[in-house]
Amino acid sequence: MSELLERLANLPLRENLRGVSPYGAPQLDVPIQLNVNENTHPMPEVVRQAITEEVHRVAGQLNRYPDREFVELRERLAAFLGHGVTPDQVWAANGSNEVLQQILQTFGGPGRSLLSFPPTYSMYPLLASGTNTAYIAGERGADFDLTAEAAARQVRESQPSIVFLCSPNNPTGTALGLDVVEAVYAAGEDAQTVVVVDEAYAEFRQTGTPSALELLPGRPRLIVSRTMSKAFALAGARLGYVAAAEEVTAALRLVRLPYHLSAVTQATANAALKHVDALLANVEDIKLQRDRIVNELTRLGLTPAASDSNFVFFGGLADPQRTWEALVSHGILVRDVGIPGHLRVTAGTEAETTAFLSALERHLGTGQG
Amino acid sequence: MSELLERLANLPLRENLRGVSPYGAPQLDVPIQLNVNENTHPMPEVVRQAITEEVHRVAGQLNRYPDREFVELRERLAAFLGHGVTPDQVWAANGSNEVLQQILQTFGGPGRSLLSFPPTYSMYPLLASGTNTAYIAGERGADFDLTAEAAARQVRESQPSIVFLCSPNNPTGTALGLDVVEAVYAAGEDAQTVVVVDEAYAEFRQTGTPSALELLPGRPRLIVSRTMSKAFALAGARLGYVAAAEEVTAALRLVRLPYHLSAVTQATANAALKHVDALLANVEDIKLQRDRIVNELTRLGLTPAASDSNFVFFGGLADPQRTWEALVSHGILVRDVGIPGHLRVTAGTEAETTAFLSALERHLGTGQG
Repeated sequence: MSELLERLANLPLRENLRGVSPYGAPQLDVPIQLNVNENTHPMPEVVRQAITEEVHRVAGQLNRYPDREFVELRERLAAFLGHGVTPDQVWAANGSNEVLQQILQTFGGPGRSLLSFPPTYSMYPLLASGTNTAYIAGERGADFDLTAEAAARQVRESQPSIVFLCSPNNPTGTALGLDVVEAVYAAGEDAQTVVVVDEAYAEFRQTGTPSALELLPGRPRLIVSRTMSKAFALAGARLGYVAAAEEVTAALRLVRLPYHLSAVTQATANAALKHVDALLANVEDIKLQRDRIVNELTRLGLTPAASDSNFVFFGGLADPQRTWEALVSHGILVRDVGIPGHLRVTAGTEAETTAFLSALERHLGTGQG
Repeated sequence: MSELLERLANLPLRENLRGVSPYGAPQLDVPIQLNVNENTHPMPEVVRQAITEEVHRVAGQLNRYPDREFVELRERLAAFLGHGVTPDQVWAANGSNEVLQQILQTFGGPGRSLLSFPPTYSMYPLLASGTNTAYIAGERGADFDLTAEAAARQVRESQPSIVFLCSPNNPTGTALGLDVVEAVYAAGEDAQTVVVVDEAYAEFRQTGTPSALELLPGRPRLIVSRTMSKAFALAGARLGYVAAAEEVTAALRLVRLPYHLSAVTQATANAALKHVDALLANVEDIKLQRDRIVNELTRLGLTPAASDSNFVFFGGLADPQRTWEALVSHGILVRDVGIPGHLRVTAGTEAETTAFLSALERHLGTGQG
């Protein structure tokens, strides 16, 4: 391997790639995988069958390029989003990461900058690097909160080309109030900052927490990002999408690779969107398990963050690495996001959640947590 | 629409996107589509069935992220390529365009340059722009040929970071001799130029024309690009791939988006690769039609280029736009690639080829060609 690294170093790599390792959560083959915020409920059989049938339908024409404009898919996504969003306001790609990369290619690049507020989705600085956009790490308050005032002040100070607001935030799990989005948007007026609200986990938010979709009318620099990976249980299908003003989706068409969304991807997503109810039925159960985790961790003396997502970020651990290893020894994989005293766990099925809570309680009882 | 363009112009677009239109061949709903070099033979039923079954198999686990390393697919692609290529030397993405973009993100970018030799695949300058890589348009000789000497001289003069050699070339259809690849690689020694041979149409090449895969051993800056869109009749599935030194694929992992290849894309490509013989059976028929087009166009007094691909580029037209329109009026769509006196036509099925040749002969007989 070190011989390979030496040969790698001999290649004429772009400077900012030297010494970098590929991004990706550590993968282990254990029975209970609660580390990458997947929907751990099995795919409903009705959806699996619908996907199979729709793919069979398009497979006979795979010799032809797919619909470059994925019209049916944009119609279905717009209908799902509601809030008056039209198909012309929807854009999609192979996972949210690709849509976010397209946004950076369109509005970022050399001489431009991206601001986000760590701890947040760890791909943001990598997407900035991949598009040669300067990355600005903003600051959060104690307990990782972000007030409208603090966020707007940092936007005024750094005048970024783009802001990514992750809400609910990964890894902390908490949603931002719409006042934060409004304040950031207004603060970006001078620099014409493009404001992206990454709502990958929006379907899991607490009752009464609004979506930034409400703010779209009259805000041409606002983009709301969603994914089918989480609530829709389609991480394997790679379908991320955004809603924004029609001119924003027109702008993204200038950088998208032609035919970037395959016919099988379109077929899979379309089939799933015909069965929204069956797919989202599990969301309520996941929210129950998520709330159960928050309650039980509190009872165990830990400090879980309020969660609007399908995972819980919790502090109060003396040695998170040791706790992570103890859980692995019980066949349970959670995520060490590198924040002192903290771990992150995905809300799985009821059985998975029980296994996690039991194993954690046993470990903490040993006095080694 | 002009109101939309005005709103688009008001967005803080990257400077090099201002006034640009989205890339894409004009699409018309006519019966005989010979404009984008698809494989027009219908998907063999055995392959369609295999794809459906494989997608059904993975659809039950689509709630999980796909295999980030697409191990099975790399094994199958390496086995197909032969030439001693190992799975560690193979990398794939959603269409060749995405792999080429990853190559530009890895070895190009600000302060770096891409050289290619127009007329060639028209996405190359757009991929350069999308990654903020300077684009250098090299020159070809009369009849669009490119000799080893001329190509090497231009590499020495412009010292590009990357060279794209399209072979067989699109839109002219002719393959380069390996002497050109060898000379370009050697000429790029000083600048450590990465040399990409885009062999999207390689499976259609004339008997005896070698692949640049032969040159891989001992050349760590050489990358050979292929696609499943053409010979494999899988344009709709979006699967492009490259073979290169192991350290090159390690380098591409530094810029790839995590989980960029969906589980359904992997399943579709794997199923197709189990039926290589059935899929490639049509290649021989397409080559027959391609040679027939070259012979017939010559008989009609036109000047088709020698073709190693599934299309024919032909000159000698007084008014290509008028010929294009006349063919459309017969329900046949070919491609006007913007080169004076020329058009490009995909070799379709025997019936489609007959329809094209008859319509063209009738049109030329009117004296308006």
